Amino acid sequence: MKKIVLLRHGESVWNKENRFTGWTDIDLTDKGVADAAQAGLQMKDNGLVFDIAYTSFLKRAVKTLDIVLDKMDLDWIPVGKSWRLNEKHYGTLQGLNKTETASKYGERQVLLWRRSFDVAPEPLDVDDNRNPRKEIRYKSVPWDEIPLTESLKDTIARTIPYWECEIYPQLTMYDQILVVAHGNSLRGIIKYLKNISDDDIVNLNLPTAIPYVFEFDDKLNLVKDYFIGDPEQINKLMQEVASQAQK
Amino acid sequence: MKKIVLLRHGESVWNKENRFTGWTDIDLTDKGVADAAQAGLQMKDNGLVFDIAYTSFLKRAVKTLDIVLDKMDLDWIPVGKSWRLNEKHYGTLQGLNKTETASKYGERQVLLWRRSFDVAPEPLDVDDNRNPRKEIRYKSVPWDEIPLTESLKDTIARTIPYWECEIYPQLTMYDQILVVAHGNSLRGIIKYLKNISDDDIVNLNLPTAIPYVFEFDDKLNLVKDYFIGDPEQINKLMQEVASQAQK
Repeated sequence: MKKIVLLRHGESVWNKENRFTGWTDIDLTDKGVADAAQAGLQMKDNGLVFDIAYTSFLKRAVKTLDIVLDKMDLDWIPVGKSWRLNEKHYGTLQGLNKTETASKYGERQVLLWRRSFDVAPEPLDVDDNRNPRKEIRYKSVPWDEIPLTESLKDTIARTIPYWECEIYPQLTMYDQILVVAHGNSLRGIIKYLKNISDDDIVNLNLPTAIPYVFEFDDKLNLVKDYFIGDPEQINKLMQEVASQAQK
Repeated sequence: MKKIVLLRHGESVWNKENRFTGWTDIDLTDKGVADAAQAGLQMKDNGLVFDIAYTSFLKRAVKTLDIVLDKMDLDWIPVGKSWRLNEKHYGTLQGLNKTETASKYGERQVLLWRRSFDVAPEPLDVDDNRNPRKEIRYKSVPWDEIPLTESLKDTIARTIPYWECEIYPQLTMYDQILVVAHGNSLRGIIKYLKNISDDDIVNLNLPTAIPYVFEFDDKLNLVKDYFIGDPEQINKLMQEVASQAQK
């Protein structure tokens, strides 16, 4: 069976502080580093041997991948990086605490910003220092494609071309592929793979650093998907992600 | 000025134990991790901003690169990995202590194995568990090109095509390139760049984790090369590398 494993990065400093991160380049916490190491060992124990891996342009995902590959003794495999796997851009919310934002704007509005399919937070002003167009990191991206805010719909629209043109076709050559990315870019891929509706995808809450395996048959059709780990523990983690913006 | 920086990986467990490592996949020591972090911060302080980086298939080089890029906040740049940047293969010497080997075979013989241009140590038996042809890591390398031992001449012969076809041509597109590799693969590149004779190259002892900068003009001719750091300290480190096989 050919396999693609999706992995959300380990806990970041702003995950811990419950702040909107988006494209802000925040590092892993010590727990995030340990999460990543554990995910690597778990995948190794499950006999996974990746041929190639992909990640975003953000430190928390790249470092999670580095740690995973090190623990699996797969440091040497090729790695592709793309801004298209970045987290959803959260516009002017980036840096704000999720609970405080809920107190200020109301839980309903924050849930709308966080979890509606096509409502984007207020865009950054072009002069805002958080504007990614100012960063050397995105110099290879056409200026118009660099977002100042995004809805989940926008995030998915720029993630899926990379999935379609770069990641998925590698299954014709390789047997096992790892993708380390973010809650919303991975939501996009899962929505696409499992044909989940716009309404339902917002209820999928991916826990950090839990390997999510997708198995494909010889014709590269998806036949099976499952998390690696204790189902009860994974359910608990999903509930925690869902409740982050509650007061 | 366009720049290529060569960096030998930080101290590995077998550097510390003074054993022949070659293609054995040995991890960094805590000092090696700290060396790498310091090299990253030094290069950042010197205003270096790499566009692309290259490394070998061996953990000690890949991890050094990962740590350097993290410290420079360049986690997102593309990284190319190749077995052609691996350390010289030390044949049956791999795993042996350098001083003990000198006691057994004589300092002169060990110096010949370590530092002659075209004498290779005894090759591994094809059944030897250390034979890299048994490793999944080298599955993409034509069987005949995977060495069982190497002289420095052999190492250079498989390193330079990667330099010529992959690394150096990137200077036409990019301004700054980082190469993190090993004592002997880097020796090959330096010999080539500076047109050093077969006799003289064996006396070049590259210290670990000291950035070595090569500057190129608009026509991509080499115009200048220098280490980053305290010259006295660097000289001392070079002497230490040279004396590793003395009893």
